[in-house]
Amino acid sequence: MHTQTLKLRTPYLIFLGEEARPTYAKTGKGIADWRPELCVGQLRLSDDALDLKLADMPVAAAAEAGVGSLIVGTALVGGSIPEHWLDTLCSAAAAGIDIVAGLHTRLDSIAVLRDAAAAGHSRLIDVRIPPKNLPVASGKKRSGKRLLTVGTDCALGKKYTALQLERDMRSAGYSVDFRASGQTGIMIAGTGIPIDCVVADFISGAAEMLSPDNDPEHWDVIEGQGSIYHPGYAAVSHGLLIGSQADAFVTCHAAGRTHIEGWEDYLLPSIGEVIERTIAIGSLTNPGIRCVGISVNTRSIAHENREDYLAQLSAKYGLPCVDPMIDGTSAIIHQLP
Amino acid sequence: MHTQTLKLRTPYLIFLGEEARPTYAKTGKGIADWRPELCVGQLRLSDDALDLKLADMPVAAAAEAGVGSLIVGTALVGGSIPEHWLDTLCSAAAAGIDIVAGLHTRLDSIAVLRDAAAAGHSRLIDVRIPPKNLPVASGKKRSGKRLLTVGTDCALGKKYTALQLERDMRSAGYSVDFRASGQTGIMIAGTGIPIDCVVADFISGAAEMLSPDNDPEHWDVIEGQGSIYHPGYAAVSHGLLIGSQADAFVTCHAAGRTHIEGWEDYLLPSIGEVIERTIAIGSLTNPGIRCVGISVNTRSIAHENREDYLAQLSAKYGLPCVDPMIDGTSAIIHQLP
Repeated sequence: MHTQTLKLRTPYLIFLGEEARPTYAKTGKGIADWRPELCVGQLRLSDDALDLKLADMPVAAAAEAGVGSLIVGTALVGGSIPEHWLDTLCSAAAAGIDIVAGLHTRLDSIAVLRDAAAAGHSRLIDVRIPPKNLPVASGKKRSGKRLLTVGTDCALGKKYTALQLERDMRSAGYSVDFRASGQTGIMIAGTGIPIDCVVADFISGAAEMLSPDNDPEHWDVIEGQGSIYHPGYAAVSHGLLIGSQADAFVTCHAAGRTHIEGWEDYLLPSIGEVIERTIAIGSLTNPGIRCVGISVNTRSIAHENREDYLAQLSAKYGLPCVDPMIDGTSAIIHQLP
Repeated sequence: MHTQTLKLRTPYLIFLGEEARPTYAKTGKGIADWRPELCVGQLRLSDDALDLKLADMPVAAAAEAGVGSLIVGTALVGGSIPEHWLDTLCSAAAAGIDIVAGLHTRLDSIAVLRDAAAAGHSRLIDVRIPPKNLPVASGKKRSGKRLLTVGTDCALGKKYTALQLERDMRSAGYSVDFRASGQTGIMIAGTGIPIDCVVADFISGAAEMLSPDNDPEHWDVIEGQGSIYHPGYAAVSHGLLIGSQADAFVTCHAAGRTHIEGWEDYLLPSIGEVIERTIAIGSLTNPGIRCVGISVNTRSIAHENREDYLAQLSAKYGLPCVDPMIDGTSAIIHQLP
């Protein structure tokens, strides 16, 4: 049985519809922020739509410019595709441009879009669909080095921490790859596995595939998911941790958060509890696992208190502690084994 | 969104094909052993096939006897359905009998079988397919009590321990239900969720559905899966543990096993390690979780050494320690909170 990992065609045209709210266009913004070299333009259906400071480009111009994929860069409540987008998406597909989305409605469930893609020999790619024929994890040691971002909760910066680590490690001369485990991350990296969409038996097997054998000095920086203390998503976090065989991990936290977001009966675990449990579980497949730093989203902290807050955490845990979006991650990189 | 849990129609006709080897007919044997009152007959395609000591019954007699489901009680290597079985299966489906299987080949992928089921208004039920629209786990406390069987490895008696506990608890006057989380268990119970086939995000949510709110004194005895120390399947075990909100658990072990079966690089965890880690993880959703006993498959131990072996384990951990197939589970039941 052959397992094919997703690989997006570059360069990208970011489709924003008429979405004006940054929160709902964060996928598009994330791609433009982290992979500007892959983005040749944006396609907006209204002048009020968010401007990612990319060239506005209609489908014909994008096809001419050799765009490989049109990426739907918005996330809608409900996650379906508005009827009035279909003209644009169909003309792109018919022009040979792959259509990429991670919405609840599957692209290939829309007949006119299927027809357009068939006519244009383009692909309809749903980044929420994992590859077929994933293996059960073997637990066998792989060559190369791995860092995983873990967290005290969901949605507090595991993806952006991993991306900043990749950027800073590359600048510092490391051979390094960001490995995406969620849909936005996959669109940014152009490849990856949506780990939370994998069937239970194969979660750790998918994690093994996500960071395959590599050169001994090469680092994979793996995007974490959920939290091992999350009452809804802990199984995903456990499976990803065990399959990743991480040599190092960075613990991510949002300053001021006191409860699991959306599960208000559950107190947030402490950073120390997450570190201790991550080492306990991760030791199964990599006895050398250790925490190399703490990454905190400090948005909720007054500017003048930020440094004190980070310094106190750093002293408490004996680890570098940074807001990666403000401080970068050099202090953490110095701790790598 | 409505989520429908599988419910098999009774009584059963156990189909054995020409399978003579007990190991490969263990699903059929399990149903006959644990739910004899639901089995009206067996259907064998050869006189050499395993005899479950049920009445031999061709399809016409089974239909006349009001059989609800024909259950394919064998597991074949590769997991497909032999061509020459199809006449029998089709005639049962056409006679209004549901066909139930848990093989790799899906029943509804076979055109002649689909046609026969349509003609007979019967169902083709694949117990490996979980219900649709499973929720993410809420972590909210449910009423009633729950016991989960956990293990040092796969395939060492978690299902049979749970079934023996159900049987003994019922004899002792408890209100109790066995809750099946795997395909053979589902066929025995007539209902359940194949937890290892659920998409990652919904593992703990499926576990919550599996043992819903109940009377305060009612016990669900939940069939465990895998092991939290298993390099391949730990994520399933974690998610099931967290969603089960177990008040009590029984730790299952196979005497003499030294390594994870099929993962020979991995030493088996000790019973003590499994108890400690199960409490640590299970405390997230039920701080009162505790181990109430140890269940050991003692097949590999000489008869004269069996009692000493169990007594030593019992003394070491301060818990009752039984081989449930020989000793029953009363000693464990006395420990229930």
